[in-house]
Amino acid sequence: MEFSSKLLERAVNEMSQLPGIGKRTALRLVLHMLKQPKEHTVSLSLALQSMRANIKFCKSCNNISDVELCEICSNPNRNEEIVCVVEDIRDVMAIENTSSFKGLYHVLGGKISPMDGIGPHDLNIESLVKKVKEGSIKELIFALSSTMEGDTTNFYIFKQIQDCDIIISTIARGISVGDELEYADEVTLGRSILNRIPFEINLKM
Amino acid sequence: MEFSSKLLERAVNEMSQLPGIGKRTALRLVLHMLKQPKEHTVSLSLALQSMRANIKFCKSCNNISDVELCEICSNPNRNEEIVCVVEDIRDVMAIENTSSFKGLYHVLGGKISPMDGIGPHDLNIESLVKKVKEGSIKELIFALSSTMEGDTTNFYIFKQIQDCDIIISTIARGISVGDELEYADEVTLGRSILNRIPFEINLKM
Repeated sequence: MEFSSKLLERAVNEMSQLPGIGKRTALRLVLHMLKQPKEHTVSLSLALQSMRANIKFCKSCNNISDVELCEICSNPNRNEEIVCVVEDIRDVMAIENTSSFKGLYHVLGGKISPMDGIGPHDLNIESLVKKVKEGSIKELIFALSSTMEGDTTNFYIFKQIQDCDIIISTIARGISVGDELEYADEVTLGRSILNRIPFEINLKM
Repeated sequence: MEFSSKLLERAVNEMSQLPGIGKRTALRLVLHMLKQPKEHTVSLSLALQSMRANIKFCKSCNNISDVELCEICSNPNRNEEIVCVVEDIRDVMAIENTSSFKGLYHVLGGKISPMDGIGPHDLNIESLVKKVKEGSIKELIFALSSTMEGDTTNFYIFKQIQDCDIIISTIARGISVGDELEYADEVTLGRSILNRIPFEINLKM
């Protein structure tokens, strides 16, 4: 791609560093900014810079936060004895949206994935194991993606804390609400039969 | 969407102002920046700000440029007597990529589209008409999109300059190279028969 302006070229190159944004999309976005008032671009870039410079990670759960201890960890109404282990902040937001969990979170920051060069020491696993061994947690819920990497990470953490006196569970795998059985994949359907649940619990939901 | 951090929320809101970027995509991009070194975000936002603040539009053709007169307009090897009228800078880049045009461009900055509230006075049509009336241009090539809006814009400009002694052409509409006839739409196929070209020209290509 040949540009008539170095400034434009630099902006497009920087934008296209972002994941899922190619050169053409970057050019479209940058040309859009040129059509908008200058203040929009200034405000976008200031927001990005101040976010990157000032954002903190909660010292307890590693969630993104503006202060040392995030809103969830510092909320006295939440049950400190149940901890839900998630991959990243988007999972925290997704679970918070359901309003069905009143415990705390622990954000790992990813999952073990040798293919991407991510080992256990790149994640916040040690601090979780330490918290569990200190004995204040009664139940740990694994809420990682149902993939090979997610299962590996679950198993790695499980091996570290299996001697502790603690309930370990994972979120239920099964048929999504509203799904047609005939389109469900075999593994999910098979597991949903193995892990069938008493009918009265269903009625309560 | 509930955020655990105001800084994050502001960055996501700003990013999601861009066209085609929803809140979820914006969050993905912003979280990616958080995983990258701080310098990446600083460099992105500086590039955007300096682009928005310092970019110029060529005073002759209205193309984006770092200087008063763009590289194409100031190139003495280009034919000043043929001007190609295009919608925006992306079209200039696309035509330049073909290396088949050695004249100058005139960038309108859009096309007449009453539905989007864009009238002839929002575009750089006056300066084009003025250039044509000054008499230095011998041929004008319309290279706008083949849509209702593109045709309207072509016709509007044509009405303003029809009395001038100048050749006016549009780029050829027809079957794309490599296309199967059976999948071509009726209008394109019909026009390509009406506007058929002598066979020897084809051989030269």
